[in-house]
Amino acid sequence: MSSLDPARTIRELKELRALTGDTNGAQRVAFTPTWCTAREWLLSKLAELPVETHRDAAGNLWSTLRGESTRELLIGGHIDSVPNGGWLDGSLNLLAGLEILRRVAGEGIRPPVTLRLVDWADEEGARFGKSLFGSSACAGTLDVDEARELRDRDGILLSEALREVGIDFKRVMESGSELANAAAYLELHIEQGPVLLDKDLALAAVLGTFGVERHAITFHGQAAHSGSTPMNRRRDAFLAAGKMSSAIYDIAEKHGGVCTIGSCTTSPGIVTSVVAECRIALDQRHLDADALAAMLREAQEASERFALEGNVTADWSRIWHIEPILFDPQLIELCDESIRETCGTSHRMPSGPLHDAAEISRAGVPTVMMFVQSLHGISHNKIEDTREDHLALAVRAFDRLATNVMRQLASPERG
Amino acid sequence: MSSLDPARTIRELKELRALTGDTNGAQRVAFTPTWCTAREWLLSKLAELPVETHRDAAGNLWSTLRGESTRELLIGGHIDSVPNGGWLDGSLNLLAGLEILRRVAGEGIRPPVTLRLVDWADEEGARFGKSLFGSSACAGTLDVDEARELRDRDGILLSEALREVGIDFKRVMESGSELANAAAYLELHIEQGPVLLDKDLALAAVLGTFGVERHAITFHGQAAHSGSTPMNRRRDAFLAAGKMSSAIYDIAEKHGGVCTIGSCTTSPGIVTSVVAECRIALDQRHLDADALAAMLREAQEASERFALEGNVTADWSRIWHIEPILFDPQLIELCDESIRETCGTSHRMPSGPLHDAAEISRAGVPTVMMFVQSLHGISHNKIEDTREDHLALAVRAFDRLATNVMRQLASPERG
Repeated sequence: MSSLDPARTIRELKELRALTGDTNGAQRVAFTPTWCTAREWLLSKLAELPVETHRDAAGNLWSTLRGESTRELLIGGHIDSVPNGGWLDGSLNLLAGLEILRRVAGEGIRPPVTLRLVDWADEEGARFGKSLFGSSACAGTLDVDEARELRDRDGILLSEALREVGIDFKRVMESGSELANAAAYLELHIEQGPVLLDKDLALAAVLGTFGVERHAITFHGQAAHSGSTPMNRRRDAFLAAGKMSSAIYDIAEKHGGVCTIGSCTTSPGIVTSVVAECRIALDQRHLDADALAAMLREAQEASERFALEGNVTADWSRIWHIEPILFDPQLIELCDESIRETCGTSHRMPSGPLHDAAEISRAGVPTVMMFVQSLHGISHNKIEDTREDHLALAVRAFDRLATNVMRQLASPERG
Repeated sequence: MSSLDPARTIRELKELRALTGDTNGAQRVAFTPTWCTAREWLLSKLAELPVETHRDAAGNLWSTLRGESTRELLIGGHIDSVPNGGWLDGSLNLLAGLEILRRVAGEGIRPPVTLRLVDWADEEGARFGKSLFGSSACAGTLDVDEARELRDRDGILLSEALREVGIDFKRVMESGSELANAAAYLELHIEQGPVLLDKDLALAAVLGTFGVERHAITFHGQAAHSGSTPMNRRRDAFLAAGKMSSAIYDIAEKHGGVCTIGSCTTSPGIVTSVVAECRIALDQRHLDADALAAMLREAQEASERFALEGNVTADWSRIWHIEPILFDPQLIELCDESIRETCGTSHRMPSGPLHDAAEISRAGVPTVMMFVQSLHGISHNKIEDTREDHLALAVRAFDRLATNVMRQLASPERG
């Protein structure tokens, strides 16, 4: 009988880093040879366990440890990374899940329910600009018509890249059958933000993923000579756009969400002319749909007020939108409990970034995530890091959560 | 004896437009064949008058009507235009001067002082990005080392373009000798702004040209995930830069100058990241050097305050700077008087844009300009326009000014 060994998870994370990274960070971009190398490495670890492993129609890798019941507890992660990525994003989830599989299998008796580990294909979307590919195909939410047109920077179609690794684009939605018996989905992830670091806490139960409203706002004014145009005669598109920078902080503070203006472009963009046109891109996120809608409305009102003040106009155009996704209340309770049992203190927080867990939750599978503290609050970068004692706590708490969930799934009242 | 005929000036402006413009506007870019055509046309007009005409070492065209005294009154303009330019910018000055020369010559007696019309070469700098070429060479302020390196978008050196039209770059500063006997310089120009239009006035005496402080301000923050970074943990370069947009309006209002942020660029410039670096270009102008210095200081203080508030830093880098150039007080009086005698009402105002007059003033020649109302407040565009009755008033008032200045130059107390 093998007991849980968080130190082994840390060793394996480093082993994977050495095998598939370089001085610039992790290089496991989905569907590339390095990603295949990483998967081969994972398969070699799984081969030591009494599990059945196969790849589904969307390229997701499933490893199943049969239990007393056909009801399934899923644990997910992703071995793919962004280019020059960190060593933990996606892999920690996966290798903590591997360790749990190993621990449960090592007990020598069938677990109460079936336990499955899934390595989602192309969570990052780094090559084709579309994240959550494998999990959205599985959840049935992938926009196939959109995905069909996706090309990488060399002009290669996603479908061509999939064919290279033996995946038939026409069949990817068949992946959905994998969820037929799914009763719960768990995912551990680094926080990728500074909240737990600031609170000096190791772990948190995740309440859900933020809804996102993403818009381009274009202010239209008029070009005019910087020297000969009195201030009160200007129709300055940058004046209105600049005022938005503070306004979104007030709006975010009022509602408790986040708002970001991530880009600003000016036209004609020369110092001898008042700005005729200024385009900013606004991203707003909140866990509560009503609050998100209010944040959007207030940003629109602010833009109209600033446009009126400066005798310019404001055009809004939606870039992207997703509803907030709330995780399962009972699983949140169990997650919180498992953290408290492991660390003494827990915390609950929403996730700003999306994760595969969001897709599986949208598919109707009760879902929860656990966050572990990130150093620097940074990810998608080779400096992404987490203290090793926190990694060990994360593996322990996550294992405890899996045990608790399996117990609950096996009990009649959750049937 | 020929009397002043402002209608002829308007006819000649239209003649020049038809000869050297197209449906997109005036195409008399300096040193091009169309510019040469325009000059040939001007020479044909001058050939009818009892004047001596020659081109100086910098390519400026001088036409001299000898007077009783060797002291000279200069009247300047420029026949070159920007590409797709307007019909009045530069040409009105020149052709009004031509009409005055014609009127004075037509009186059949030698004027009290020598009267010279000058067509400055390449006022616009449209092709090589350096304006006031001919007048700055003449004034002795041209930066020869900088000018030597100038190339157009096809990689042709300014010196090569000059050689094409028979000008030796090595000798351009010899143009300065033309100012040896200059006692006053006058220039009529369209306003290129909306001030006179707003005041419903035809003409103004120009007090001088604004000093300019032009800086790039770069705010340095930190990239961070738009979803996972709490608002109070951000180091948002765009927040600080955006606050500058309002601040410069307050600063300009306080001091009575103008301030413009003409461009804004963001990095990484993606909606999923807080802006790590934001660069804005700031242009500040004022007629008073102390006020200009105060406007600059207050903008710097504002940037530091916003940087502190947002936990970012602000770097300033001067792009360009010129002192305010104040025109001659006595000539301003005379200009004002000539306008009042012609229109009943006058106005005094600074010039936002620079003009050849600024260079000649810097060279120590007493200088004044007269502005005539611009429709739309727009120039450097084919829609640039001025009412014909205002053009006629401008020619009359400018002729009156020339007469008054010649009279004054001839009187002993101004000796």
